[in-house]
Amino acid sequence: MPQLRKDPVLGRWVIIATERGKRPTDFATEPEEKKGGFCPFDEGNEDKTPPEVMAYRDPGTAPDTPGWKVRVVPNKFPALSIEGDLDRAGEGMYDKMNGVGAHEVVIETPEHDRQFADLPADHVALVIKAIQQRMLDLQGDSRFRYIQVFRNNGSAAGASLQHPHSQLIALPILPKRLTEELAGSKKYYGYKERCVFCDIIAQEEWTKTRIVCENDAFFTLAPFAARFPFETWILPRAHHSSFEAMDAKMRTQLAEVLKETLMRINSALSSPPYNFIVHTAPSGETDLKYYHWHIEIMPKLTKVAGFEWGSGFYINPVPPEEAAGYLREVEVPKEEIKA
Amino acid sequence: MPQLRKDPVLGRWVIIATERGKRPTDFATEPEEKKGGFCPFDEGNEDKTPPEVMAYRDPGTAPDTPGWKVRVVPNKFPALSIEGDLDRAGEGMYDKMNGVGAHEVVIETPEHDRQFADLPADHVALVIKAIQQRMLDLQGDSRFRYIQVFRNNGSAAGASLQHPHSQLIALPILPKRLTEELAGSKKYYGYKERCVFCDIIAQEEWTKTRIVCENDAFFTLAPFAARFPFETWILPRAHHSSFEAMDAKMRTQLAEVLKETLMRINSALSSPPYNFIVHTAPSGETDLKYYHWHIEIMPKLTKVAGFEWGSGFYINPVPPEEAAGYLREVEVPKEEIKA
Repeated sequence: MPQLRKDPVLGRWVIIATERGKRPTDFATEPEEKKGGFCPFDEGNEDKTPPEVMAYRDPGTAPDTPGWKVRVVPNKFPALSIEGDLDRAGEGMYDKMNGVGAHEVVIETPEHDRQFADLPADHVALVIKAIQQRMLDLQGDSRFRYIQVFRNNGSAAGASLQHPHSQLIALPILPKRLTEELAGSKKYYGYKERCVFCDIIAQEEWTKTRIVCENDAFFTLAPFAARFPFETWILPRAHHSSFEAMDAKMRTQLAEVLKETLMRINSALSSPPYNFIVHTAPSGETDLKYYHWHIEIMPKLTKVAGFEWGSGFYINPVPPEEAAGYLREVEVPKEEIKA
Repeated sequence: MPQLRKDPVLGRWVIIATERGKRPTDFATEPEEKKGGFCPFDEGNEDKTPPEVMAYRDPGTAPDTPGWKVRVVPNKFPALSIEGDLDRAGEGMYDKMNGVGAHEVVIETPEHDRQFADLPADHVALVIKAIQQRMLDLQGDSRFRYIQVFRNNGSAAGASLQHPHSQLIALPILPKRLTEELAGSKKYYGYKERCVFCDIIAQEEWTKTRIVCENDAFFTLAPFAARFPFETWILPRAHHSSFEAMDAKMRTQLAEVLKETLMRINSALSSPPYNFIVHTAPSGETDLKYYHWHIEIMPKLTKVAGFEWGSGFYINPVPPEEAAGYLREVEVPKEEIKA
């Protein structure tokens, strides 16, 4: 079973794979996915994944057979193990627990060669609905404190398969970054009695220089202190702390603005590899006054890595105002966004 | 002038380049360094860098001419500007200041094709001495709170030139990671009245499973909660909080253990790209009881990036005990370490 280990200085939990440890030579020889090769996520290959957890499918089609639009399966190589108790324990001065959690893959479309941003908006909404449904279900398990939702697009961004998919990891701990966001926004709320993200939205609407695109319910901006070139955040205009509580109307609006944002990024930057991550309140913490859910999109444009990882200190060669300007200027046909 | 901007939620400062903003097309076309092409760090090309700040050179040779062993020059494309005041200011709810700082390059040898780990140990010690000397000098400038020392090896680790070099950035703020380390180690000291790093060393010496190599003064280990495969830390056995205060005897010992560690990494992992970062106490804070300087080495073996960056949540596919085992087992001739 994988292990969760806590850094004794920083208090950060890390997942350490204990069973499928890689040998030194595995890193040099990691194969690239072959174009046109076999894909376990393709329609017709349903028996090559673990049995599906849920799917949106045509009426009358059986689980693990063709006929689905969106399909969720356990990750075949999970980072965490679904069975077992946490068994918190010490090892001298160190703290550890069992790597208990869920790791699921949302196969976003049967079409292998589709770009996520090119899916019709109502299909993107269906993907979001599936993610929400899985989050709400996993939150029923009292071992899990946070459901981390993310999407790796392109092999340079860590995607091992090209077929459009996103991932959920249910964790028995809070990720470090979320803990920091909660602490920071709580502190701000204590001082101002206002949500810091609501204040960000108000100021950005007023100055307009960092806005990328928007609709009635959402707002995409290049954040003031962006770490990465062309980093963009999508925030709901109204105060909501939980992504998973979003209703159908908001979901449609999110699908549109997410699609438009990614189309703008793809157009301005020649479809770069990217990651996006959903930031939402911890499981069971509904309606937090001080926290505001949002999505952070990080195109992977620069190679620098270890230094930033190691120091937490980022140098961004593109001012967010310029990035927002480039992203606003590219042509994105409105009918394609709704399509 | 570059700008330092503070994230209003996390309180993290970021450097935003304001003058040399990259256009979207710059990322696709960033050229790789050509093999055998012109190198501004080569001997004879001293006039192609800004004038040297210091150098260890043969007696009788003039600055900015051949005859040097180690040479320190300002970075031609600095992340921060050396002139000016901080001018802290608000921009609505946001905080910013001028990007004032120093950015220097330590050219470690005139030999273009040398690997850092293959330099003789006494030459490595000379590089360390030059870094210390620059740190002590920069600490005389009251605008600077921290001198960040780091080395990017290989283009995948962010090195834009292959010629062996390391870098110093003098910052008017503390990097986020260091702030966290100071807070964590202070908390531990408050509870235990012992340095957390000293306790780590004691436990690792006792269990031995995560030790990579060691000598009288230093200790290389794979940390218990390593974020990255084959991440290794070098710590002085005795309690010292400042790298820059190290004496000549310790410097020789560090040169040996650093060389041996990198030789082991190169041998086990086929000379991978890597970063290393010096973690030391803030400028002017000498003899902290709760902090212990150390070097963190991060081989860049996996592609995953944005997700970890974004969540602060790491999955390490190689247990540190196994990594230490592989690094211990490779053959490294002792005479080459001393050489």
